[in-house]
Amino acid sequence: MREPGVLLAIDAGGSHTRAVVVSADAECLGYGASTSGNATAVGADQALAALAEAASAALASAALGPDDVRRVLLAAAGEEYLLHGRAVAQALALTAAEYTRASDILAMYHSSAVEPAGVALVAGTGAIAARFRDLVTERMVDGTGWLLGDRGSGFWIGRKVARAVAADLDETGGPTDLTRLVIEELGLEPAEGHRSPLLQALVGWAYNGQPVRLARLAPLAFRAEATDETAAAITAEAEEALARTLRLVREGHDELPVVLGGSVVVKGLLDPGRSSGGALRRELAGADVRTAHDGVAGAAIVGLLRSRVLVDSDTLARLTRSIDELRGGA
Amino acid sequence: MREPGVLLAIDAGGSHTRAVVVSADAECLGYGASTSGNATAVGADQALAALAEAASAALASAALGPDDVRRVLLAAAGEEYLLHGRAVAQALALTAAEYTRASDILAMYHSSAVEPAGVALVAGTGAIAARFRDLVTERMVDGTGWLLGDRGSGFWIGRKVARAVAADLDETGGPTDLTRLVIEELGLEPAEGHRSPLLQALVGWAYNGQPVRLARLAPLAFRAEATDETAAAITAEAEEALARTLRLVREGHDELPVVLGGSVVVKGLLDPGRSSGGALRRELAGADVRTAHDGVAGAAIVGLLRSRVLVDSDTLARLTRSIDELRGGA
Repeated sequence: MREPGVLLAIDAGGSHTRAVVVSADAECLGYGASTSGNATAVGADQALAALAEAASAALASAALGPDDVRRVLLAAAGEEYLLHGRAVAQALALTAAEYTRASDILAMYHSSAVEPAGVALVAGTGAIAARFRDLVTERMVDGTGWLLGDRGSGFWIGRKVARAVAADLDETGGPTDLTRLVIEELGLEPAEGHRSPLLQALVGWAYNGQPVRLARLAPLAFRAEATDETAAAITAEAEEALARTLRLVREGHDELPVVLGGSVVVKGLLDPGRSSGGALRRELAGADVRTAHDGVAGAAIVGLLRSRVLVDSDTLARLTRSIDELRGGA
Repeated sequence: MREPGVLLAIDAGGSHTRAVVVSADAECLGYGASTSGNATAVGADQALAALAEAASAALASAALGPDDVRRVLLAAAGEEYLLHGRAVAQALALTAAEYTRASDILAMYHSSAVEPAGVALVAGTGAIAARFRDLVTERMVDGTGWLLGDRGSGFWIGRKVARAVAADLDETGGPTDLTRLVIEELGLEPAEGHRSPLLQALVGWAYNGQPVRLARLAPLAFRAEATDETAAAITAEAEEALARTLRLVREGHDELPVVLGGSVVVKGLLDPGRSSGGALRRELAGADVRTAHDGVAGAAIVGLLRSRVLVDSDTLARLTRSIDELRGGA
């Protein structure tokens, strides 16, 4: 039975916002993308504008309009009040659609799993793990942001890289290869001041923007870890922190599928060419592990489940294939 | 010989800006105060407005005007380009005065020392140590700000306190008395969300303002350290970091006087009633140690030295006494 009206599912991430228009039989009809839809990172106005842009593009590519939308599912990090339903409906010019909010990590989970119970670990700029059952969060660990937590995240690693380089340049810490890599990555030129010219330049860069930009330095730790002790200590500590975060949500639930997402985990710690570390691999030994690239398919799956559509692995496969087709053509 | 015109010395700090009008014989003629004059913390416009307010008040209390000022000495943290001489002269309506900039830590040093060579350690919101000779900085360690360094500073301690409390509330870390103290200090009320209601409230507070506000939590670590292991570990690590920062500028110069400033050192680590710790006391054993409350007297001393006025301990005593008299009356 095909429901009248379509589902509009939006995954509002820290760097990208992705929207899909999906039929009740899980066929992706339209796809659109925009910049950051994270209200904490870019402010509510800019986040709403990004949601609207991605949603309009998705509807246009499906040759549909706002009135054809029956349900909106918004997957986003951060606090509900920053992007409340009324503001989202207004920004998207939707009046009749039912609006539901889900956490970004639940969407990430359902991008690679249709089992109603499972766990996810996502470590990109931030870091969070959660255990779900029937769309309800049973346990959430960390995800408390760059000041309070996010242990092992891209920011956490990038901050340690920046501090190690500052200490090296200040001659208060030992030498590290990270110094050369950071100077190259940021294109630092010696600057005048009371300190060493390159430290002065690093100080100038660090405070001239959003603190979370330090996450940009995280890949340098993985690049240097095979030959540099300082880098190896940072990635080892990050891996142990993330393994612990995951263990805390898996405790007593080792049979559940595990979905991994975020560049620190997928491109960094679990890079097949990596010889260092192992704490996360040990934690995952014997588990049913999958990875997810982003949360847009999962946002659609959550929307379908909320509409009481039956969802199985074929549904997710059909959805993912049809999203990839439109995304490839976008 | 009395020079024509007066010296206007300004100490632009992170919380307060203080200005004094000083005659060539080191008598304070006027005193004025304002809010933060730190351009990194509050932006250049607000910082310049604070400088102008403090300077106007100081000149008014001396019954003098901008044309009576022969030299301006601005002591400030942060980068020179944020508060350049032309902008300061314009904000203060000064045209003919000679303008000199000094670091805030040099001003702090000369607030309690007239010896041309010596060292200072200042740990308030930030943390820095330096060794001086004839107004020149021979060695500066740390002071690289809350993202890159400031090891052992109020922010550094406050961030560790906040993270320990977040971990306690998240049940990912052990219990600590700091949790109760932080809840009381911030007046946290349980808030709704995916997490424990008090953690949700802490997250809401932490990201709703300048990150350096976390320095407000530093005194709680000192309050709890006698009975709480987590707090004791934080203050011990801070003390070791600051002792090391100081040692790096003192190496080979143990005979020089040491000026200490900033609440973390003066009210926290070296509190006479404190029984914990000892790394900083050990580093200071046998040294000629003094403390400084702020840098305004030192800013004036630097200004007098730059005007080639002879400065001895009587000069500093006369200046300090006359500032205190006006300050008490303000």
